[in-house]
Amino acid sequence: MPIHERLLADTHSLGKFDVCRLLLHRNAVVPWMILVPDRVETELLELPRTVRETVLDESARVAAFVQSHFGSPKINFAAIGNIVPQLHLHVVGRDPTDICWPAPVWGNLTEERSYPTVELESITAQLTASYDLLYYAEN
Amino acid sequence: MPIHERLLADTHSLGKFDVCRLLLHRNAVVPWMILVPDRVETELLELPRTVRETVLDESARVAAFVQSHFGSPKINFAAIGNIVPQLHLHVVGRDPTDICWPAPVWGNLTEERSYPTVELESITAQLTASYDLLYYAEN
Repeated sequence: MPIHERLLADTHSLGKFDVCRLLLHRNAVVPWMILVPDRVETELLELPRTVRETVLDESARVAAFVQSHFGSPKINFAAIGNIVPQLHLHVVGRDPTDICWPAPVWGNLTEERSYPTVELESITAQLTASYDLLYYAEN
Repeated sequence: MPIHERLLADTHSLGKFDVCRLLLHRNAVVPWMILVPDRVETELLELPRTVRETVLDESARVAAFVQSHFGSPKINFAAIGNIVPQLHLHVVGRDPTDICWPAPVWGNLTEERSYPTVELESITAQLTASYDLLYYAEN
């Protein structure tokens, strides 16, 4: 299932798990991952139980990576979807020293920074080596 | 486990499920439920799988109630916890006509309205009759 163009425009595509494709928000001021389940449902809480469980397992894996790689002491996890209807889950690494703490990130990031290519390669390599991420090229 | 005083101050206590107690945000401008699992973990994605599954089942039940009772076409589901460390899950009924659509509710509700007592009683009665909510009195 194609990923909504608004999500693609805002993110780097990192790869795929069994159910979700994994995107990284282009704004590097906070570590902000987005999982997109390959499903037609638009509500997390309306997924069949077994699919929901896999989606949560994959989200937990991404959260563990964010904690380990970025040292984030707190994870914000959310299914919002008010702007982009396609089901997608935010896994955001938060820290009391980050730019909009304690406010949520949505609509509150007033600075922007890009990931250097070498950092993107390192993130993808670690996710592939230790978190079962598979290669996937978005069209 | 006692519920954090900040959560109690902001909400009406509606009752309990197997794992979560159920709170309703006092601000009635959007239907905003908060589930508080009776657990020491502070991260949803670090709960044991079986507990996480029950927490998600209870959240799905609350989402179904919000959709049915308030007619919300969209559910925002989130575990944030930047201000209150105790694990709690937001289930918020959203509508394109609501006051802060499409922004998330956190920090964006500029109006306030209270629930009439009769409405609170009706909500609790429906949750008890059809969604397996049990009576529970917070101290």
